[in-house]
Amino acid sequence: MVDSLDNKPPHQVVIIGGGFGGLYAAKALAKAKVDVTLIDKRNFHLFQPLLYQVATGTLSPADISSPLRSVLSKSKNTKVLLGEVNDIDPKAQQVSLGEQVIPYDTLIVATGAKHSYFGKDNWEEFAPGLKTVEDAIEMRRRIFSAFEAAEKETDPEKRRAWLTFVIVGGGPTGVELAGAIAELAYQTLKEDFRNIDTSEARVLLLEGLDRILPPFAPELSQQAEASLEKLGVVVQTKTLVTNIENDVVTLKQGDEVKEIAAKTVLWAAGVKASPMGKVLAERTGAECDRAGRVMVEPDLSIKGYPNIHVVGDLANFSHQNGKPLPGVAPVAMQEGEYVATLIKQKLKGKTLSAFKYSDRGSLAMIGQNLAVVDLGFMKLKGFFAWIFWLLIHIYFLIEFDNKLIVMIQWAWNYVTRKRGARLITGQESLRTVENSQYYKASDTRQPVNV
Amino acid sequence: MVDSLDNKPPHQVVIIGGGFGGLYAAKALAKAKVDVTLIDKRNFHLFQPLLYQVATGTLSPADISSPLRSVLSKSKNTKVLLGEVNDIDPKAQQVSLGEQVIPYDTLIVATGAKHSYFGKDNWEEFAPGLKTVEDAIEMRRRIFSAFEAAEKETDPEKRRAWLTFVIVGGGPTGVELAGAIAELAYQTLKEDFRNIDTSEARVLLLEGLDRILPPFAPELSQQAEASLEKLGVVVQTKTLVTNIENDVVTLKQGDEVKEIAAKTVLWAAGVKASPMGKVLAERTGAECDRAGRVMVEPDLSIKGYPNIHVVGDLANFSHQNGKPLPGVAPVAMQEGEYVATLIKQKLKGKTLSAFKYSDRGSLAMIGQNLAVVDLGFMKLKGFFAWIFWLLIHIYFLIEFDNKLIVMIQWAWNYVTRKRGARLITGQESLRTVENSQYYKASDTRQPVNV
Repeated sequence: MVDSLDNKPPHQVVIIGGGFGGLYAAKALAKAKVDVTLIDKRNFHLFQPLLYQVATGTLSPADISSPLRSVLSKSKNTKVLLGEVNDIDPKAQQVSLGEQVIPYDTLIVATGAKHSYFGKDNWEEFAPGLKTVEDAIEMRRRIFSAFEAAEKETDPEKRRAWLTFVIVGGGPTGVELAGAIAELAYQTLKEDFRNIDTSEARVLLLEGLDRILPPFAPELSQQAEASLEKLGVVVQTKTLVTNIENDVVTLKQGDEVKEIAAKTVLWAAGVKASPMGKVLAERTGAECDRAGRVMVEPDLSIKGYPNIHVVGDLANFSHQNGKPLPGVAPVAMQEGEYVATLIKQKLKGKTLSAFKYSDRGSLAMIGQNLAVVDLGFMKLKGFFAWIFWLLIHIYFLIEFDNKLIVMIQWAWNYVTRKRGARLITGQESLRTVENSQYYKASDTRQPVNV
Repeated sequence: MVDSLDNKPPHQVVIIGGGFGGLYAAKALAKAKVDVTLIDKRNFHLFQPLLYQVATGTLSPADISSPLRSVLSKSKNTKVLLGEVNDIDPKAQQVSLGEQVIPYDTLIVATGAKHSYFGKDNWEEFAPGLKTVEDAIEMRRRIFSAFEAAEKETDPEKRRAWLTFVIVGGGPTGVELAGAIAELAYQTLKEDFRNIDTSEARVLLLEGLDRILPPFAPELSQQAEASLEKLGVVVQTKTLVTNIENDVVTLKQGDEVKEIAAKTVLWAAGVKASPMGKVLAERTGAECDRAGRVMVEPDLSIKGYPNIHVVGDLANFSHQNGKPLPGVAPVAMQEGEYVATLIKQKLKGKTLSAFKYSDRGSLAMIGQNLAVVDLGFMKLKGFFAWIFWLLIHIYFLIEFDNKLIVMIQWAWNYVTRKRGARLITGQESLRTVENSQYYKASDTRQPVNV
């Protein structure tokens, strides 16, 4: 016990955000001689890559969430604090949560990103995005309510609008949502309605670039497109959305302008950094990119502030190949772990070479037995890619009990093609279908008593 | 195919409500030569006896819910309609949902009950009850938020109020909630907090009568009380709640008046019939009891209306022993099945003797390895009662996939004593703990944008 000889209080590490970046940093510091305080607005870590399965009725929120306290209960040097940081004072080295002030020696900011409507914030009410558990429950409510409304609708045109699902954005989330909704309409729900034929539903996936899944190799994009179309999804590339309003999506394809009547529009396009980026910029003079991400140094610190690190979706790390690293879970995990190692090295008086992201590949689920996996040195598609996707996601689910439950849910869904979590719930769902205004935004105008 | 000789349209059965009464009636009519329309506000059947496990973080809503369409997808004679009936016209033999009108030959009303505050409706904001999925999510939010608030609170008196949980009502729901919260505080959460010792929490179960679980044999009430106290619950019988307001519960015990400062108060006391009872009374002249339940004839019909039946918690059936049957799932199931049989018999020109409830006993879970079971001819307590409780609940979970998932969740919780579904979610939880007004009622005053 050499330590006990010096009486300095332990080095204080404060982490803001319990997503992949923050949580992996905290876990990697579990046995270090530091005090860690992890601050999050929510009391759980959310496994975001599977959120689309909550939105489409396969899994429950708790299946892909782990209580932060429970994940970190064995890290005796770590405190979890539920709350929202509203300011950072880099001179005094402290963060504030309302009245409460927490001092730090090293700060790790990992507050992530939220969806962005490229300045058209009024689109959100018509086309919700998918970042939180509440977002997923809202998407689920809209998807299943649309089938219910179609079942009741007698006007064929309106019925068609209820049965039209438009997904904006052809990245992994958009592809996964489109595939899952197609499976719902063409397989899962087929026997369940009496007035409508759910296989008349249209699922449209819109992408501005010339191919879906732009981070993947072009041949996999093609594979994914072919697989989606086999499932029944209509994929439209080189398609710009110019307006979303009153159940109509306006598109531009080249010079042609089209309107699509659709009651359910889901947003899987842009993201922007969380507001903490702006706070950091104001307080430290850090530069931000157009998406609001904070430009970081090769060691993920902020220029001039070697004890403030930014990791995950909030960081713009462009030192590897000139382009910012993508906003995906593996980047956040590796950045979080890097900063933890850096702190430990510094405490030993050592240094650490610059952060380097080790890209192990990209993967996207399309549907039953269908996925695409790009490992760089190897490309997989179809059944083997699908198995690979399952194994990777199961492996990374933080807590073992979630893994087991998710595996069984998946196995069950695979065999029966059923989806048990098709609940229409939430405040909004408590109005009757007749009387409800369909969009969440109305909640703020006419609140309901439950 | 003798049928096809006569061209009469099939007998139209309309069922209002997809709880135990309505669903079991619909299932029992699956192969009858009738058309069935099942109308419910929600798109799922809820297994209410396990709702307290959602409220206390063991199960997810989807684990104890089955989509009505999925449960009834093989009943080709059955339509499910999502909507709320707002009127019944017994002369024209039709029910209306807003503009839509649905004719019936036989009507089954099974809209159940909701909690009642004995005229003190302002208590609801401080002491929510447990009837819907949304109620359970709200209770879960309050319970886990209370521990989080206590962790942050520095004032010892306020901290004590955050760590005080009062459950009003010593029936099965109250007993099960109290036992589950005690297990949370004294076992599950013990390692998870750094500033508070969760085992300092107080869990109080209040009952107006002289013993808890009044429907059980007195010796089982005593057993249950002893088991609860072993778990750490303070049981207070002969205790009347006279007020609940501003985090203070006022009690009367004999002539003594006490006040308890508690931030979390849960209501498991009175229920009253759903509003459909009043509609029925107005339209048919049916009598209602004090709790709003409709007095029914020996065949569960309304006097003068042999084709309108009331089943489940909405019905007051007092022909068996002079007392109304209790508002529990087995009564509703048997009543639903009885009416289905009666309809089938009538169509064959036959009659059916009066409904008779076959009481197979009562059971209540107290905690790990602890339950009480009263089968009349046999009374069980402790471990064997607990096993019995598990088996019965698993057996009655409607869909097999739920059974499997629930069994595995339970097995896992049993081994690890963890609870995975400890999420604080919902609109209200999206405010920060600091800035939130604690009670849901505030939602209606200051709605939040998500």
